[in-house]
This record gives sequence, C-alpha cells and structure tokens, in this order.
Amino acid sequence: MNLSPLDHRYSLSEKEVFQALEEFLSENAVIRFCARAEIALVKAHLGDALTAELARDLDALGEEVSPEEVYREEEITRHNIRALVNVLKRRALARFGTGAVPGASGLTGEMLASYIHLGATSVDILDTAQSLRIRSCVEQAVLPLLCGLEKTLCALAEAEAETPQVGRTHGQHAVPITFGFALAEYVSRLGKSILEIRLRARKLRGKLSGPVGAYNGTSMITPDPLGLEERYLSFLGLEPSEHSTQLVEPEYLLRLLLEINTAFGILANLADDLRNLQRSEIGEVFEAFGDGQVGSSTMPQKRNPWNSEHVKSLWKAFAPRVVTFYMDQISEHQRDLTNSASGRFVADYLGGVCFALGRMTAVARSLVPDREAMARNLAQGGGKVKGGVLAEPAYILLSESGASDAHEVIRRITLRAEEEGVSFYEALRAEGDVFKTITAQLEKLGFRSPQEFFERPENYRGLGPQRARALAQKYAALMDKISP
Amino acid sequence: MNLSPLDHRYSLSEKEVFQALEEFLSENAVIRFCARAEIALVKAHLGDALTAELARDLDALGEEVSPEEVYREEEITRHNIRALVNVLKRRALARFGTGAVPGASGLTGEMLASYIHLGATSVDILDTAQSLRIRSCVEQAVLPLLCGLEKTLCALAEAEAETPQVGRTHGQHAVPITFGFALAEYVSRLGKSILEIRLRARKLRGKLSGPVGAYNGTSMITPDPLGLEERYLSFLGLEPSEHSTQLVEPEYLLRLLLEINTAFGILANLADDLRNLQRSEIGEVFEAFGDGQVGSSTMPQKRNPWNSEHVKSLWKAFAPRVVTFYMDQISEHQRDLTNSASGRFVADYLGGVCFALGRMTAVARSLVPDREAMARNLAQGGGKVKGGVLAEPAYILLSESGASDAHEVIRRITLRAEEEGVSFYEALRAEGDVFKTITAQLEKLGFRSPQEFFERPENYRGLGPQRARALAQKYAALMDKISP
Amino acid sequence: MNLSPLDHRYSLSEKEVFQALEEFLSENAVIRFCARAEIALVKAHLGDALTAELARDLDALGEEVSPEEVYREEEITRHNIRALVNVLKRRALARFGTGAVPGASGLTGEMLASYIHLGATSVDILDTAQSLRIRSCVEQAVLPLLCGLEKTLCALAEAEAETPQVGRTHGQHAVPITFGFALAEYVSRLGKSILEIRLRARKLRGKLSGPVGAYNGTSMITPDPLGLEERYLSFLGLEPSEHSTQLVEPEYLLRLLLEINTAFGILANLADDLRNLQRSEIGEVFEAFGDGQVGSSTMPQKRNPWNSEHVKSLWKAFAPRVVTFYMDQISEHQRDLTNSASGRFVADYLGGVCFALGRMTAVARSLVPDREAMARNLAQGGGKVKGGVLAEPAYILLSESGASDAHEVIRRITLRAEEEGVSFYEALRAEGDVFKTITAQLEKLGFRSPQEFFERPENYRGLGPQRARALAQKYAALMDKISP
Amino acid sequence: MNLSPLDHRYSLSEKEVFQALEEFLSENAVIRFCARAEIALVKAHLGDALTAELARDLDALGEEVSPEEVYREEEITRHNIRALVNVLKRRALARFGTGAVPGASGLTGEMLASYIHLGATSVDILDTAQSLRIRSCVEQAVLPLLCGLEKTLCALAEAEAETPQVGRTHGQHAVPITFGFALAEYVSRLGKSILEIRLRARKLRGKLSGPVGAYNGTSMITPDPLGLEERYLSFLGLEPSEHSTQLVEPEYLLRLLLEINTAFGILANLADDLRNLQRSEIGEVFEAFGDGQVGSSTMPQKRNPWNSEHVKSLWKAFAPRVVTFYMDQISEHQRDLTNSASGRFVADYLGGVCFALGRMTAVARSLVPDREAMARNLAQGGGKVKGGVLAEPAYILLSESGASDAHEVIRRITLRAEEEGVSFYEALRAEGDVFKTITAQLEKLGFRSPQEFFERPENYRGLGPQRARALAQKYAALMDKISP
Repeated sequence: MNLSPLDHRYSLSEKEVFQALEEFLSENAVIRFCARAEIALVKAHLGDALTAELARDLDALGEEVSPEEVYREEEITRHNIRALVNVLKRRALARFGTGAVPGASGLTGEMLASYIHLGATSVDILDTAQSLRIRSCVEQAVLPLLCGLEKTLCALAEAEAETPQVGRTHGQHAVPITFGFALAEYVSRLGKSILEIRLRARKLRGKLSGPVGAYNGTSMITPDPLGLEERYLSFLGLEPSEHSTQLVEPEYLLRLLLEINTAFGILANLADDLRNLQRSEIGEVFEAFGDGQVGSSTMPQKRNPWNSEHVKSLWKAFAPRVVTFYMDQISEHQRDLTNSASGRFVADYLGGVCFALGRMTAVARSLVPDREAMARNLAQGGGKVKGGVLAEPAYILLSESGASDAHEVIRRITLRAEEEGVSFYEALRAEGDVFKTITAQLEKLGFRSPQEFFERPENYRGLGPQRARALAQKYAALMDKISP
Repeated sequence: MNLSPLDHRYSLSEKEVFQALEEFLSENAVIRFCARAEIALVKAHLGDALTAELARDLDALGEEVSPEEVYREEEITRHNIRALVNVLKRRALARFGTGAVPGASGLTGEMLASYIHLGATSVDILDTAQSLRIRSCVEQAVLPLLCGLEKTLCALAEAEAETPQVGRTHGQHAVPITFGFALAEYVSRLGKSILEIRLRARKLRGKLSGPVGAYNGTSMITPDPLGLEERYLSFLGLEPSEHSTQLVEPEYLLRLLLEINTAFGILANLADDLRNLQRSEIGEVFEAFGDGQVGSSTMPQKRNPWNSEHVKSLWKAFAPRVVTFYMDQISEHQRDLTNSASGRFVADYLGGVCFALGRMTAVARSLVPDREAMARNLAQGGGKVKGGVLAEPAYILLSESGASDAHEVIRRITLRAEEEGVSFYEALRAEGDVFKTITAQLEKLGFRSPQEFFERPENYRGLGPQRARALAQKYAALMDKISP
Repeated sequence: MNLSPLDHRYSLSEKEVFQALEEFLSENAVIRFCARAEIALVKAHLGDALTAELARDLDALGEEVSPEEVYREEEITRHNIRALVNVLKRRALARFGTGAVPGASGLTGEMLASYIHLGATSVDILDTAQSLRIRSCVEQAVLPLLCGLEKTLCALAEAEAETPQVGRTHGQHAVPITFGFALAEYVSRLGKSILEIRLRARKLRGKLSGPVGAYNGTSMITPDPLGLEERYLSFLGLEPSEHSTQLVEPEYLLRLLLEINTAFGILANLADDLRNLQRSEIGEVFEAFGDGQVGSSTMPQKRNPWNSEHVKSLWKAFAPRVVTFYMDQISEHQRDLTNSASGRFVADYLGGVCFALGRMTAVARSLVPDREAMARNLAQGGGKVKGGVLAEPAYILLSESGASDAHEVIRRITLRAEEEGVSFYEALRAEGDVFKTITAQLEKLGFRSPQEFFERPENYRGLGPQRARALAQKYAALMDKISP
Repeated sequence: MNLSPLDHRYSLSEKEVFQALEEFLSENAVIRFCARAEIALVKAHLGDALTAELARDLDALGEEVSPEEVYREEEITRHNIRALVNVLKRRALARFGTGAVPGASGLTGEMLASYIHLGATSVDILDTAQSLRIRSCVEQAVLPLLCGLEKTLCALAEAEAETPQVGRTHGQHAVPITFGFALAEYVSRLGKSILEIRLRARKLRGKLSGPVGAYNGTSMITPDPLGLEERYLSFLGLEPSEHSTQLVEPEYLLRLLLEINTAFGILANLADDLRNLQRSEIGEVFEAFGDGQVGSSTMPQKRNPWNSEHVKSLWKAFAPRVVTFYMDQISEHQRDLTNSASGRFVADYLGGVCFALGRMTAVARSLVPDREAMARNLAQGGGKVKGGVLAEPAYILLSESGASDAHEVIRRITLRAEEEGVSFYEALRAEGDVFKTITAQLEKLGFRSPQEFFERPENYRGLGPQRARALAQKYAALMDKISP
C-alpha cells in the first residue's frame, strides 16, 4: 500500500538490498543516528569527566530511544529535533536521576540532562547525523554492491579475454576485439568510480557551530568552540566542515552524489551494451532465464533482456535527479529550509542506485555469452562487405609502404567489393599492385600469406586480450583490498 | 522502515492525502485496475452474449482477485500479467465451472475462461489500466486538491482586493498594488492550469492492438479488430490510442504530466513569494503557528515560513523529473522495456505533487496578512527615496504634457532626493517648472492637490482591485463547476 | 570565431535553416520586433487621429531604426529599451518636426514623440515583441520544417505500407508488421504534436499593464486602460495576457516550448529506430551517402548512420533545457530579472530544434529501405527459433479452440524447437493433437494448409498496411491545409 | 546576426571574456588543436629521427594550416579529420618535397607525409585535441577568472570581517554575524572548488588506440603500441586514458564539468544572497551604478540588482545541462556518435560559466556595503520582537545553569514580548527568577550588566571575525600560488 515503487515492488523483489539500506535510510535510521549525535555532544561537553563507564551508559541511553516515542513527542512540538531532545532529557533524568552521578565527580543527573543539545542548533545534530548515515550507508551497503559487481566483471573480462568479437562503432562492424576487452571498459571505468566514491564518502563532514555557523552559542559556553566541535565530531569519526552556516557546506555531499551518479551512468552504458548484444539479429549474449519464466504473455518464443532494460530504466528515473542535488547547493543567507524535503529524497536516490546495482550484478553473474554467435558475426563482419573489418589494416599496410592516398585507394576497393558482391579479400586480390604491396608488408610482419591474414579477422585484435587481463587483474586486486 | 520519504514521513504527516492516493497509486491498485481491464476484455469478446447478470458476475470476478494471490503466482511465472491471467482463469473456472453458463446460451465456463486475455498482449492490459488509474487519480485526488487550493486563493484575493501593498520588481519597491491583486496572479495562472489538467486527464487512451500494435492477433479472432478494441475500452470509459506499438502513444500521458508540473511551478512561485513576504524586514504575511510549536531548537523567537519552504523544496525534488518523462518518450521499434521501471515512479511524482498541494492549501487557509506592515512598507516605499514609488506617475504626467525627456528629468529628481535625504515629493516640489506642469496635469485628472496625490501612494493602484475581483469571481465559478 | 556551435558549425552546414531563423532569433531581430511594438503603442495612443497615411509613416519610422544605432545609445543608458525609445524619439522629431503633423488635426510632432513608450514599462514592449517574434518564428520557420518532415514521412509510410518487416519488442523479433506501419507511428505522433504546436503558438500573449501589471500608469492616461491594451496588441495580432505582473504569464510560452520538446522527443525516437535499423547485423535501411564521402578515417568500408546519430545528439543537448523553462516560471513578486538571460537562450533552443529537423528531413527524404534485408530478417524471425514470430497466432488459435493453457503449451513447443534446432513449424507439426486443433482453426479462417500459414509469416500482419495508409492520408491532408 | 546570445549579446558586452575563450572554444580553435595533435603523432612516429630542427619545422607546418582551407576540403570529404589530413599531407609534400629530408637520415618527404595520421583513427586526434583544448581553456581562461573572483571575495571578507550584520535563517533574523563572515562562506566553498577544478583539468587524457581502442592498427606498425601512444601524448603534455574504446573514457571530462557546475552553483548562491540583501526593505548592499544608467524605463527611482540577477539567470540557463553531460557517458559498444553534436556544446557551457564569472567579479569589485543599514537591521533584529536575536544566548545561559526546560521558558518570554509589544530584554527583565539566573551567568562570563549584553547584539558574534580572516587569508595565499 506504499506509494513509492521502492517500498512496494522492490522491497519484495530485492529483499536483501532493501534490508541493507533500511538500516541507514529509513526514517527510523534518521532518528537513531540523530540520537547518536546528541550523545556525542554530551560526551564532548563532559570533557575529562567522561569515564569509560559513563560513555557506555550514554551510548545505551542513545540506543534506547525509540522512533515511536520521538514521533509522539513531535506531534506536540512539531519540531523533530526538539522532540528528540525532550525524549532524551526525560530518559536521562529517569536513568541518572537528578542527583549526583556515581563515579563522575561533581556531576549531577540534572547537569547531564542540561548538556543534552547544549550549544547545538538542530542542524548541528541533523547534518552531522546525516553525514554519518550517508557515509555508513555508502561504506556498508553501496560499496559492497559496487565491489561485488566489479569483481564479477573482472572475472568475466579475464575469462573472455581471448573470445573473438567484432568491434562496433556507430552500430557498424569496425575492427575485431575480444569480448573480454569490451568488458574491460567497464572494469576500468567502474573501478575508478568506486575508488572515487570511497574517497568522497570519507570526506563527509559534520558541524557544531550553531544556527548561523559563527559559534555564537558555544562561544558562551567554552573559550575553545572549535575544540568542542572537533571533540564532538571525533566521537563519530567525522571532521568539521571548513566553514559552516547553519548547514555543513553542501559540496561535500554533492560531490559524493555526483560520483555515485557517474557510476550509475557507467552501469547504464553497460546495460545498453548488453541489451543490444541480445538483439535477435546479434544474439551474442543472453540473460539467464528461469525455467517456468514467461517472456511475453502472447509471444511464447521470446526471451527479453528485461534485467538490462530494468537497469537502464532505473537510470532514467534517477540520473536526472542530480539537478535537484545542484539546486540544493543554494540556500539563502545562513540557510533557508528549501533543501530539507528535497534532501530527504537522497534516500530514494541511493535506493534506486542500489536496486540497479543488485540487478546488474545478477545479470553479470549469470550472463551467457554465445561464443559461436560472436564468431559468426565477426566472420561475416563488415556490414555490406564480408571481411570489411580488415579494410583498416589494408589501409595501414599500404600507408606504411609510403602511399599517401592509401585511405582513398582502399575505400574504393570496398565500394567495388560491395557493388560486385564479393568479399573484401577477393576485391583486394583483384588489384594487382596494391595487393602486391600489401603482401610484401605482411611478409615483413611475419604473416605467411595474405589469405591467412585476411580470412582470419580474429587475429587482428591488437592488444585486446592483454589489456583485458591487465585491467581485470588490477581492479580485482584493488577490490580485494577495499572489500575482502 | 520504508525508504521513500513519501512512504514514511509524509504517509504520517499528510495522512489524508496519502490515503486518497493509495487507492490509485499503490501496487495493489495496479493489480486491481489490471483485473478490471481483463474483465472488460472478456465482456468485449462476449458481444451479444453479455447479459446484465453475467456482467455483474464478471465484475465480481474481477474484484475478488487479491494482490497477494497474484504475487504468489508471479513467483512462478516471473511475469506479472501472466500471473494475473492464471489467477483469473482459475477463479473463473471455480465460479462458472467448465460446463454451460446458465442464462448465456451456448457459453461454457471453459470458453469463458479461454476469453480471458484472449488476443491481448500484456501491455494491452497494463497501459489501458494505467491510463484508467492515472485518470481516476487525477480526477478523484489531484484535481480536488487543486480546486480546493484555487478556491481558497480566490477567496483570499477577493478579501484582500483593496488591501494596499507595494509592488516589487527586482526585489525593489516599484509602484503600488493591492495584496488581492498579487494573489490574483496565482488565481489566474493556477486556474488555467487546472482546466488544462482536467482536459489532459480525459485524453488518456487505452489499446487492444497486440504486441506490436498491428492488431495481428485480434485479426485472427474477429473481422473487426478496431471494433473489438473500441468495445473493450468503452467498458472502461476510454478511447483507443490513434496509433499504437506495443504501447499507447506516450504523448497522451506525457502532456498530462507536463501540465501537472506546470501547476507545480506555479505553486513553487507562490511559495517563494510567501517566503519572501515573511522575511523579518518585510513581515507582510505569516503562516499560522501552532501553540506549542517550536520554530527553532535554539532561537526561541523565530517563526519560520517552513510550510512555504517545504512546498518549494518538494518542487526542487520533483520538478526535474520531467526529464525522465521526456526520456520515456523514446522506446526502440515496437517498444523496449526501458520505460517500465521509470514509468512506475509516476506514482511517486503524483505523490510529491499532492503532498505539496496539501501543504500549500494549509498555508493558504490559515495565512495571516499583516495589513499594517503592508501599509508601512508602502508608505516608506521607494528604497532609498521615500515616496519614490510615485516617480512613475510623475514621469507619465510630465510625458503627457508633451515633454519628451520626462524620464530623464524625473530620474534626476530622484537622485537629488536621495543625495539630500528628502522625500520624492519634497524634491519634486523644489523643481518649479516641472512641479507646475505636473500639478496642472493632476488637476485635469481631478486631484485637488499634488500633495494629496504624492502622499497617498495607495491611491495609485490602477485597476488592482477590479482585476483581483474579476479573476477571483471568474475562477471561483469555474471551480464550482468542476468540483462542487 | 563564435563560441556556440549553432553559430559556427551549423550556420555553415545548414545555411538555409540558419537564415530562416536569423530573421526572428538574432539580436537584430529582437530590436526590430521591439520597434514594431513601440510603433503599435503610438498608434494605440493616437486613437481616431490615426490616419492610414500616418500609420504608414509610423511603420516606416519603426523599420528605419537600425540595431547599431540602438547599441550605441545603450552604451550610455545601459538599458536596452530606454535606448530604443531615445532613438525612436530622435527619429520621430527628425521625421515629423516638433510642429503640426500635416493631415492629423491637432497633432504635433512633439506630442507624437511624447506618445512613444507612453504608459509602457520596458516589458510591455519586450514581452509583447517576444511573443510576436516567437510566434512568427514558429509559424514561419519551425512549422514549415515540421510539416515538410511530416509530409515526407506520410509519403514513406504509404509507399512502404505493404513492405513486410519483423516487428521488434525488447530488441527481439516479435510478430510481423510492415515498414510503412512502423513509420506510421511517427506520422501519428508527430502529426498530433504539429497541430498542438500550431495551437500553442497562436496562444502567445502580449501586455500593456505597466511595471507591476496593475495598469497604474495607463490608468492616469485613459479611463479605459484595458481598451488601450487591446488596441495596442491588436496592431500586432495578439491578445492580452489574462493577468500580468511586469511579465506576461509565463505559461503561454512554457506550454509552447514543452510541446516543441515533445516533438523533439518524437524525432529522437525516430532517429534511434533508424540508427538501429542500420546496424550491420540488421541492415534494413540506409542513409544515402555522398560519392566522395568518407565514413571513417581508418575504416574505409564503413557507412555510418551519422545523420540519425546527429539528431539524437542534438536532442541530448537540448531536451534537458526544459528544466530551465520550468525554472523560468518562477519570478518573485511582480517579477525578478532572473528569467532574462535564461530566456534569451530560447533562441538557441529553437535553433537546436530546427537544425535537428533539417537533418532529419534530409535523412527521411533520401532514406534507402533494403526490402530484401527486411524480408530476410523476417524469414529468419524468432531469435533462436526460426519461424518463432508465429508462436503468437499458434497460441491464439489454440486458445480460441477453448484450451485455457494454450500459452504454456506453445511456450514448451518453442523451447523444444530451440533444443532440437528445428523450426517452430516443424516442432509444432510433431505435436499431433495440438497441430490438429490449430489446423482445424486455420481452416475455419480460410487458410488452405498450416504450412502455407506458418511458412509465410509476412501474411500475419494484421491491419498493418491499412493503418499505415489511413494515418498517412489523414496527416498528409492535414499538413496540406497548414502548410500548402 | 548570430543565434546564440553568447555570440551576439555577450560577445559585445563582455568582450574581454569572449576573446579569452574564443582562442580555445571557437571552431577555428578545434582545427588548430587537431593540427597540433596530428603533428605530435608524426613526431611520435619519427622516434629518434626527430631532430630539434625537424620538430620546429613540423610545428610550423601544424600552425600554417588555416581553418578555411580545411573547411573547403571538408565540402568534398564530408569528414572533418580526413579533410585536415588531406590538407596536412599536401602542405607536407609542398614543404618537404617527396625526396630526402635534409638532416634527417633516411627520411623522405613522402615517408613523412605517410606518417600523418598513420595508425590513428579520427578520434585519436579529436579526443586528444579536445582534452588539450579544454585543459588549456580551463587553465588559461576559466581559472584566472575564478581566482580573480576568489581574491576579490577574500579581500572583501577581510575588510568586512568586523562589520556587524544580522544572521538570517529562513529569511528570519536569527543571531548576529559579521558581513565578512557571511562572505567567508563563499571564500571557503569557491576556494575548494577552484582547487578541485584545477586538479580535474590536469587529469584530462588523450588516446592513440585506434577505432575500437584495442591498438589494432598501431600493433601492425610497432611492437610497442602503448609506447607509441605515450610518446604521442607526451608531446602534448597528456597521459593516455586507462582504457579506451574509440573514445577516451568519458569520466575524465565529465568530472571536470561537474565540478565547474559545482562552482557555478556557489556563484548562484552568492548571487541570490546579494539579490536579497539589495531588497528595498533590507538594503544592506548595492551594486555600483553608472551615472547615466537607467534602472527602469518607467520607474526612475529604481536601482535594480541586475548583475546578480544576471548571474542567477545564467545559472538557470546552464546548470541543468549537466543532464546532457551525464547522457554523454553512454555510448554503445565501442562508440556511437550521439555524443558528438552534444559534446560540441561544452563550448557554450564554458562560455556561459565564464560570462557569469566575469559579471560576478564586476559585482564583487564594486560592491557597496551599507554598514549603517546592516547596523539598523541588526538593532531592530528579531522579526516581531526587537532584540529577539538574543533569545538564543538567553536560552543557553539558562541551560548552563542547569535548567532542562530552558528553551521552553525563553520561547514563552518571546511570545509575551510580542503580545505586549516590548523588547525581548524588557520582557526578560520582567521575569524575576529567570532574569536573576541569566544575570549571574553573564557575570561569570565577565559581562558587567545584562543590559550591556542584551542591548548590544553585535557583540554576540562568536568567532565570526576570526573565521572570516582565517579563511580569507588561507585562500588568498592559495590563489596567489595558482594564479599570481
């Protein structure tokens, strides 16, 4: 009965991903992380009075707050952090009493309760808790999914490093590659994006500088407000925003989200490639299909690339949301609230990304390459001219011999081949001088005969296999370090 | 524990809006509407054999299908419509038996079961059901909210038609208006958008033309496939898409969504105006404030325009999603599936719009205009020059007397007023000839003295009140027709 | 040496389109249209004093203003409309003198000069002139291009109405269509969009309601400011905005731009289809290729679908700009200026659309369908199972005979065909009972033998040809009306 | 007569910026940079045969190619790089002859001509040249503008470090800051973005890996294709893309553009702040105004913040184009061409950013802060309650004394102050116990009297001045390093 497809359709179909996220992105998680931030602030105020035991007690206090309790209080205050503060104070007084706190000299329960939220404005808690939440979500849910996919791609790229395939540009047969080399593109692009996401997540910042960022309130409380801020954040493993208004500088989060969207774009590109390789006429890969699964309600023969289509579709739904992320950079003066509701939908966005990641990983894990089809397409390669995928080396060999019009010469031969319906090799052979020159060049390179060269396009593959292996091994090793 | 703020935060805070939407936008609703479409198809196949009793029985069949049942079946088929069809067939055989259906000559239960989904591809059901769902949602949930807001604005515009306010351009005092006139802008813009949304919702279409839109299958079943399609859709109150592939032409829905986003932009503009009018220095309107409500967790004196900020923030979160709507126009050949997941998020989008509408209506209903503040700002009007808001009529009066450099003359007078720290009227009076000319012109217009004119800026309000009333009355009447 | 590709690359490569646009979209055009609006205002002020001769003289005055002159003046005033007004006044005094204007009783040149811009704020001129400019541009440049493309598509759809082609969904062979039917999709979608654009262009509005829209100034000049506004606009063929602030309501223009972007999306979809049909493995259509044209600098055999790719690429560059159009709905209070620079780029946008239209028309005019390739692909149709495109009718025929598990039965047959490497028909024939039932059904429909049916998939084309012709004829006739 | 506002309006109004960009972004520049890349490739092929003299000769050859010549050739080839190659070959043969090249043992002119483009596909040149062009443009045009603005902001922040101003959140008076502190926000955010842009520009990459990225062609020419690629790029100061298809990995450029858009968002935020501070009712800063400059064609008294509005408007026009940048990540298989036209508009985008930067710098350089207005607004601070900006410290002082309901106590006092129309201090003084407690706390902090504290809100400014100075000095020093 939910409105968002994230919460009904995908919460069921991708249960595991959903649960990993829910711990960080649900409204409950918002409250839990805010409670932790409030507790960190109490600890920071306590300074040397903070004993290990008191720290444990305070942590327990933070964890015992229930979202339901806070919601009930919010119905009165209509202010979410004030509601949390009220609940925490009540619970602190209940836990520690109003009198002396045992083991903490000079500290009373009432004092301790008064430290809750002291000197903080709501956003000192909210923005700090959000940085922690998003960082944790990225590190514990998004990155593991990303690394899992990357490792699968590495394995595939290495396994298919030698599998001949025709390279395609503009949808046209160009020159030969290997399927592993094609996959290595994604290994390389996604790998770098993963490293960047990891870096950006670590750079998220918190703050304790009050409602306008000038440390007005904390300057009344301590001679060293910057020190208090650092102490507060250190309990959460964060550093302070270099400058803050009521808000942490928005660019720390923005850059992380932009990079996640960059990874999403790489995924979408891979999905498009897989969709196209599954076209009836191409048929070079297939998504694994369940036994009783129905491809179409009327066309029983069909096997649709629906998982790849799904990933692309999620990209269409979520990628344009970067416009919102950029809009949220703008907050008037020391802040307006117009980034509040919109900022909440970062949760949706991360959800969308993770569901796409889960799906793409499933596709990659069970991808069925059809090596015969790849070989067949390559053998027929060249669009209208069989063997035309080797027009490039013919042109290069001719150029190397010193002919400065080599390109035009070969282009005319391909046109003739098309007109006469013969293969590129046959047309080439008919051109006495050119053929002789190319034959001589091939001999220098160690080919026994031009026929051997022109009828085995799969050998003209350059560094395809080497590059595929090198990239696969590099990133597999890197991923093992990040997410063993 | 949901991910989307729509499903946790707003499902609680805006319960009424949520429930109105859930009937059309939840996953349950998707299944319910698909079942209705399947039943309509059976009726269409029955032709003259459809008795009133049988129609009632079939309707009951459609309503008795539970989403849970369909979900269980989908775990096997992994195809949602095939799952629904299987469930419906089972239930049809259970309800009607395999033998003769009483009262329907020549019809057996087995035949009836075979009519389910006959000739239809999944999308004949899905796209048709979606058109019906979205149309119903717009007519029964979105439009009532829009009309409610529009009526409130009409009432406000009329009530404040005479309230003097300074007009502002570039954030600078320009010339006088009335507050009602300012509101009439939104009455006029939103009013037209509402009429357009209504029109666009009615234009949503369905289809029964098979997997590629060419009526291949239904041409095997009937000599009049276009007639069958019309009959099918007529049971749902829809017309057929002029052309279809596997999909209804995407532009019927696109145009509706674009217009809804247009209305959203108007809302965002109103929200921005209200936010700015609530600035501490301006203070011309206020959002009503609950008694125990807390404006800020540290600044007890504050009353933030948080509802208007919320509306603007939702606009930032949702308006950029039109890019997705446009992307979903593109589907390769007779369709690819990349509009499927993205299309589901139309539900989110409508949710976002409705929550913004609900919030804006609440703001409008309890808006507190501060007429004194408006009068004070107008009286001091003119930025650096008191009374400068009447520089325009001075220039016009001078122009009318035939001076072709009137603008420059008056501009210099305003500069002098600023330098000398006197009011515009005082500076004007000091310019013998110009003052005399203007005085003469004012006399022609029936003003007793220039002082009377220049010290009562609120009288220089043009047609403000008339226009406010005319627009308020026009649209209030129109809204009464649409949503009594 | 220009920055924008529109002004260097495309001004050369698409000279004709560029020149058609330059008349409406260049900065010169902005000034020319503003001058026309200023002249219309003078005429409106003159009322009955306006003789036919004076009207001609005034028109000549408006046309003689040169943009250079206005630019020079703007260097002093730093305000574009004030610059134009100064120039017009100088020229009016030069043309008419300061004394009596012959033939116009009681009118002096000085009076006439004082009527220039009288009662108008800059935007009364600018927004009005812009509405006129954009409307003219759409009617005289955009719509002719659109209609030209639509007519070409109509002709193609009709010419190819009977050409058999395999229908594709999810990139998979689905069931047969004809190429003309596939094109009719675009005839239908683009046709409706053209009609809508035409309507929206006519609805653009102007205004003469002063700096805040309340007719403050004109109320000082005339007892009937609404009448003056109507008279002013009538000289330009426009109607007044229902309400205005300093600006015309933004939605008149917004809706036009959104619809133009809708047409652009349809173009992009067509471009994608054509790109895919040109893939080496599919090869069903080709873009015509110049004789000396080089497809690739290294792969002489290639013929890339670069024009279709170009159209898609322009869509990627321009379609997301709708976000700006929506942002420009928001203007604080009676206007802020943040829609000014952004609004200028509507010129770019229309340029981008028109260049795409020009290119797509060129593609369509010289498109080379390869009917043999279409026939070959259809004959092999069905992905992994030859003849699998007829699994749908087999399932339908079986259903009609009353079998409620027909879909599952046929699905299993296709799986068997795939496993055994036989055609769908062969696998079907091996299933005694099912085959018999289907044969019987086919006989009822008048087919002599199942073989005839299953080995001629091109006959299972439904209403493809009829629909293609009906839509082509309908829209060709409509286009002839709009743009003969 | 150009279409793009960049090329007409802004080429005149911002001549200096335009000329700085034209060197890198015009179509001429595209050809010039491609010629440089082609020459680098010849050098790479020459290996040890490349003498210093020959290198100079080759550089001269590259520079002597004129865009006009290339355009003429392109009319024949309809392929831009092939046209350039033809021209270069002709010129090489003209310059070096066909025979022996003096001083280069064993090298003939014909050989040299055959090295032109040898082993390269068009995009090896185009993408490499583009990386160089964009990097040069950013380093030589964009960064100097950014650094200039940043330095101006640093100077302003330091100069105004002590100027009291009221901090604003939600448009409401919150607590005091200084104007320099408010500016330091932009110093900090923009400063970091500048450093990031610089880094990203340096990371742009080139390639020489052929039409599908697998080094097919160069593997025929050399046993070390990776070495050849490195040598080629080293002449241009670039490194190779880690993997390439026909294209350099798109993310190198994407990340640079995203960061530039991030800087643009910071600019837009500053523009919004300045716009709002110029509101008639606030009037805390002004844009300097030319002497004869006209603010409004009808309202001679107005001084509009039109430069700040202009910057915001450019942001609206350009920021959403990131959607295109993300779309251009996707290229099917080893490339499709749909990123070609769209990629050209990166030139427009950089133009838009630079014009905004130029304008914002002009605003910042001549910004007129009105310190009196700032003081006045602060003194009246607190919206409905004079002195309400000090409610926060009252609440903190009360909290520190151990009261856990301090917030609620003070909130009620502000409500009472509002009802009774007295200042916050007066209302506070009326509350015996609370007042006494707060007085005691203030004494501890060294304040002589509560009156002194509560009537001098400018003293409650926290670390405002220190932070302003620290950030201004840090970034001024950093900018001096980058752009002395």
